[in-house]
Amino acid sequence: MRDFFNPASVAVAGASRSGEKLGNVAIANMRRFGYAGRIFPIHPQADTIMGLPACPSLESLPQPVDIAIGVIPRELIPGFVQECGKAGVRKVIVSAAGFADAGGEGVALQEKVASIAADAGVRMMGPNSVGTISTESGFVTSILSLEKLGRGSLSIVAQTGLFAAGLARWIATTQYFGLAKVACLGNKADVNELDILSYYRDDPQTGLIGVYTEGVEDGRGFFDILRSITPNKPVLVLKGGRTETGSRMAASHTGSLAGSPEVYRGALAQAGAIEVESLEELFDLAKALQYCPEPRGPNLGVISVTGGGCVMAADACFSRGLRLPPLKEGTLQEAKQVAPPWASLTNPADIWSAVETRGIGKAYLGITRAMAGQDDVDMLMPVFTLVPESAFDMADAYGQIREEFPEKPLLACAIGGSRDEYDEWFEAMEKLGIPAYGSVERAVAAAAALYRYHAWRRERMRRPMTST
Amino acid sequence: MRDFFNPASVAVAGASRSGEKLGNVAIANMRRFGYAGRIFPIHPQADTIMGLPACPSLESLPQPVDIAIGVIPRELIPGFVQECGKAGVRKVIVSAAGFADAGGEGVALQEKVASIAADAGVRMMGPNSVGTISTESGFVTSILSLEKLGRGSLSIVAQTGLFAAGLARWIATTQYFGLAKVACLGNKADVNELDILSYYRDDPQTGLIGVYTEGVEDGRGFFDILRSITPNKPVLVLKGGRTETGSRMAASHTGSLAGSPEVYRGALAQAGAIEVESLEELFDLAKALQYCPEPRGPNLGVISVTGGGCVMAADACFSRGLRLPPLKEGTLQEAKQVAPPWASLTNPADIWSAVETRGIGKAYLGITRAMAGQDDVDMLMPVFTLVPESAFDMADAYGQIREEFPEKPLLACAIGGSRDEYDEWFEAMEKLGIPAYGSVERAVAAAAALYRYHAWRRERMRRPMTST
Repeated sequence: MRDFFNPASVAVAGASRSGEKLGNVAIANMRRFGYAGRIFPIHPQADTIMGLPACPSLESLPQPVDIAIGVIPRELIPGFVQECGKAGVRKVIVSAAGFADAGGEGVALQEKVASIAADAGVRMMGPNSVGTISTESGFVTSILSLEKLGRGSLSIVAQTGLFAAGLARWIATTQYFGLAKVACLGNKADVNELDILSYYRDDPQTGLIGVYTEGVEDGRGFFDILRSITPNKPVLVLKGGRTETGSRMAASHTGSLAGSPEVYRGALAQAGAIEVESLEELFDLAKALQYCPEPRGPNLGVISVTGGGCVMAADACFSRGLRLPPLKEGTLQEAKQVAPPWASLTNPADIWSAVETRGIGKAYLGITRAMAGQDDVDMLMPVFTLVPESAFDMADAYGQIREEFPEKPLLACAIGGSRDEYDEWFEAMEKLGIPAYGSVERAVAAAAALYRYHAWRRERMRRPMTST
Repeated sequence: MRDFFNPASVAVAGASRSGEKLGNVAIANMRRFGYAGRIFPIHPQADTIMGLPACPSLESLPQPVDIAIGVIPRELIPGFVQECGKAGVRKVIVSAAGFADAGGEGVALQEKVASIAADAGVRMMGPNSVGTISTESGFVTSILSLEKLGRGSLSIVAQTGLFAAGLARWIATTQYFGLAKVACLGNKADVNELDILSYYRDDPQTGLIGVYTEGVEDGRGFFDILRSITPNKPVLVLKGGRTETGSRMAASHTGSLAGSPEVYRGALAQAGAIEVESLEELFDLAKALQYCPEPRGPNLGVISVTGGGCVMAADACFSRGLRLPPLKEGTLQEAKQVAPPWASLTNPADIWSAVETRGIGKAYLGITRAMAGQDDVDMLMPVFTLVPESAFDMADAYGQIREEFPEKPLLACAIGGSRDEYDEWFEAMEKLGIPAYGSVERAVAAAAALYRYHAWRRERMRRPMTST
């Protein structure tokens, strides 16, 4: 699979001299991401396209490229794949839609293309695939304009193209976690989740994996692969078509059979994969798993300047199975150094009285530090409410906590705040490697997933699973 | 309660000449919101504060003010409330904390203040209350700096001060729905949810109500009031302390007894109130209820340029109890005018093929219009994925749909997109009165709540509830 992410050379069919075609978008993406391999536009007449020497066909290339991308109408695809085989090109990504996704004669056309590829010894991603992204190599085949993405350890494999489209743009312009690799598989006539997951399992850039699938053909193989990955790398799975209605829709989208939701759910849990219900949840959990160390247990220490935030955090902890250990005598004594004598501190700690007497910065830092020092506090969650009166140097305070307690996961959330206040807070937290959330519930859900994954993993290490 | 929101005059104790105190923040807020009533700072020495003539005491005022605000230390509060009574001031908001919220002697102090107020015939909001906001009168008592809020029909009553703090700043700087009134009650030693809800019920500016409560003393009275409001105005309730852990926390926060979660849940449903689980959900649902007309049924028509979006929408509809009616022959014929002959359109409609052949603008407009024209499509949800290649004049297209089908609720969602793309899309939708969401699941949840509220209401109208 390496050539799908890090080829030394690529041929692009479907770019024009005027630069208006989707193939041009793919080439522009590769330039923006700093792809260092050679790019050959394929064009019947042009000498150069976007300043690159063009060739009339794959066979006329000076030497075979590692991969070809076909951003051309569906009726030209069979011939193009055949040409790959003749020209010694062993990998192809087919962007064109109108195959199994369209039903009718598209189904037969897909079968034809798949059999041509198989006969010619060509591995094909697609059809109806926007292909791959690698932030390491800068190789990007998306036919939708992307902003340059930062590098991270999250790799994605998805049937949908969303991850190499709007979602990649969202991550590039608003998020701090970055990505390692993305593969958008489309109709999966050949390359499927199993191929990509096997590759990600051994890929050193990939630290955790997000999967969006509407159904896999080889369920047993899928779960075997998951099981071989999860002890080392967390895998988050969003199953499209996990309900009755959704599954009918999935069938018409990429022709997948979605399978029974209950069977999937059980198998995922057994394989140590983390099932999520939305894209939002996928990214919320992924960044906690990427940023945070392993928590030793389910005990959360919550620090909040608002009593309402304390109550909401307590509700969310109960719902998600996290515990709020009571503060011990030593913790209270330390915390009381920044609080008035009459303050009744507990966990969640409403620190308003300390804020009134010692100022917001000292109150957050002092009480967070006291809680972090308590041995049965496994994770910490400061809750902020962003108003000018509660502004302080959060990067400084929580930078200290991160340094003093590197082994304790720290997740932050904020309730409200103006746009600028929120952005500033979000940047301060995320740059410290503290996952930041816009709601108490989302932060607690992430902490709970972090705990559950590592608890499962510890259990798994103690009692290796026997092959079933 | 009118004087708590629209007094002709207000006295503020706790503002200083140097402008650094919390009372100054309250005065600055009122100016920013354009409060037209008279403001009298109360100060032992100062002649003027922030350019306003100051008085040494409430009793020395030229005439009694409608309301006084005490932003002074807790030990001064009993005297201040007593002074209100003597000076003929009939309403007071007490900001100071350290009463029932602090436990211990704070509890006794609160009882003392409450009994002074009762004896003097003074209605008191608080203690530990940041008071009220009225976007109509510009009266704002919050001691946290707020940005000027737009006017809307949502009114809030909450125990927590968050709604007159970070959340108000978030709404002012990022949201389009605005607010009518906010009351943050704090410890509720006197004025409570029942007082405010009775007032909102008859307030012409209030079209719907959001409640955050950690527990009410008079449960029966609370549910009776809700029941008298919900046939005319939707009420959303976020119950802090709805879990075992949360309820213990609520007790220590404002001294409330949270009551059994199951009893609350059942009573809320019976009263026609909408229970929500987070602030995010409260605002998501509120704006749908504020913007949208009454849907006739649970049938949603979904239009999406991405197949993944179709599948996720179908899953969300199943989970939330909405239906996706199949497209009728006439609808298909109309939709086919903007799609290639081989396209297999269904609901959710994956419009990618139409986009390829007719361009994105024509595809969205044509297929949305065809679905809107089908009589059993009760609501519409376009799903967008924001990339430069899918940009079009959404305001123009969906402005047309709003005009042609004013009776059909329209909710929009977007998957991803760069920050600027998302902001532009969000503004275009919300300015048309189309609630816009950053995820498919949240948009579907809002549509489902919209349907359920109106279905409950129709049923309620048919069979008036007998008093129980």
